[in-house]
Amino acid sequence: MALYLEDFTPGQVLESPPWMLTKNEMVDFAKKYDPQPFHIDEAAATKSIYGGLLASGWQTIGIMMRLMWDTFLSRTASLGSPGCDEIRWLKPVRPGDTLRVRFTITEVTPSRSKPDRGIVRTFNEVLNQHGEVVMTVRGLGMFGRKPS
Amino acid sequence: MALYLEDFTPGQVLESPPWMLTKNEMVDFAKKYDPQPFHIDEAAATKSIYGGLLASGWQTIGIMMRLMWDTFLSRTASLGSPGCDEIRWLKPVRPGDTLRVRFTITEVTPSRSKPDRGIVRTFNEVLNQHGEVVMTVRGLGMFGRKPS
Repeated sequence: MALYLEDFTPGQVLESPPWMLTKNEMVDFAKKYDPQPFHIDEAAATKSIYGGLLASGWQTIGIMMRLMWDTFLSRTASLGSPGCDEIRWLKPVRPGDTLRVRFTITEVTPSRSKPDRGIVRTFNEVLNQHGEVVMTVRGLGMFGRKPS
Repeated sequence: MALYLEDFTPGQVLESPPWMLTKNEMVDFAKKYDPQPFHIDEAAATKSIYGGLLASGWQTIGIMMRLMWDTFLSRTASLGSPGCDEIRWLKPVRPGDTLRVRFTITEVTPSRSKPDRGIVRTFNEVLNQHGEVVMTVRGLGMFGRKPS
């Protein structure tokens, strides 16, 4: 059954399944999209201010997106997203870390100009296996309204 | 020669080389990180509000990151990034589009607590081959200061 704009309520919290990030997956992503030495080179990373390899923040947010799909987006009338705000990378994501995401619905607003859709605002927290918040972002999602 | 915090000036504009995004690259990325039907399935995309396949916005920003590396980050004393703000996906990125990025330095601020580094704020515009701005984001970068 599809979820529509009307099925979201401010205050709702959705918890994702886990995602384990391997070192190979981390380095492969970074070599293509973010080849800073502390993302791709173990020796350089050890000497850096991070003290060891860490994931590109863009991969962390990619995993967050995938976990959003797995948690609820796949069942919705999603129409994409106009953007997002306040990405903050708070702690390093390390090889072998297991991430999960807590999605909190903060606002549900029907569109004024387009009566068939609306915007859902969320606050997304990515946590590691120690329960530490490694990343936060405020998301915007566009969803279809329930056919009347 | 490495670029340090002191080598950035508000108003500076840096232009990236181009990046052509193939349909396979687009679909492969989306299958892993953002499997919404309009990113991975040509028929579903054609029937969607986007009228055809479009790239995941997270891939567009990944390409922006890589082009930042190729344009100037590889030559800097980069220390990573605490986050970014106001990602806006303004127009669809289509299979075969050629993207480039215009990086404008907006603010250069030495750290108060850590005298060896500082923050550079940028406004990044991703353009397609028609000169249309498809994405914008406000970036934060941490850079080392010139050794005195």
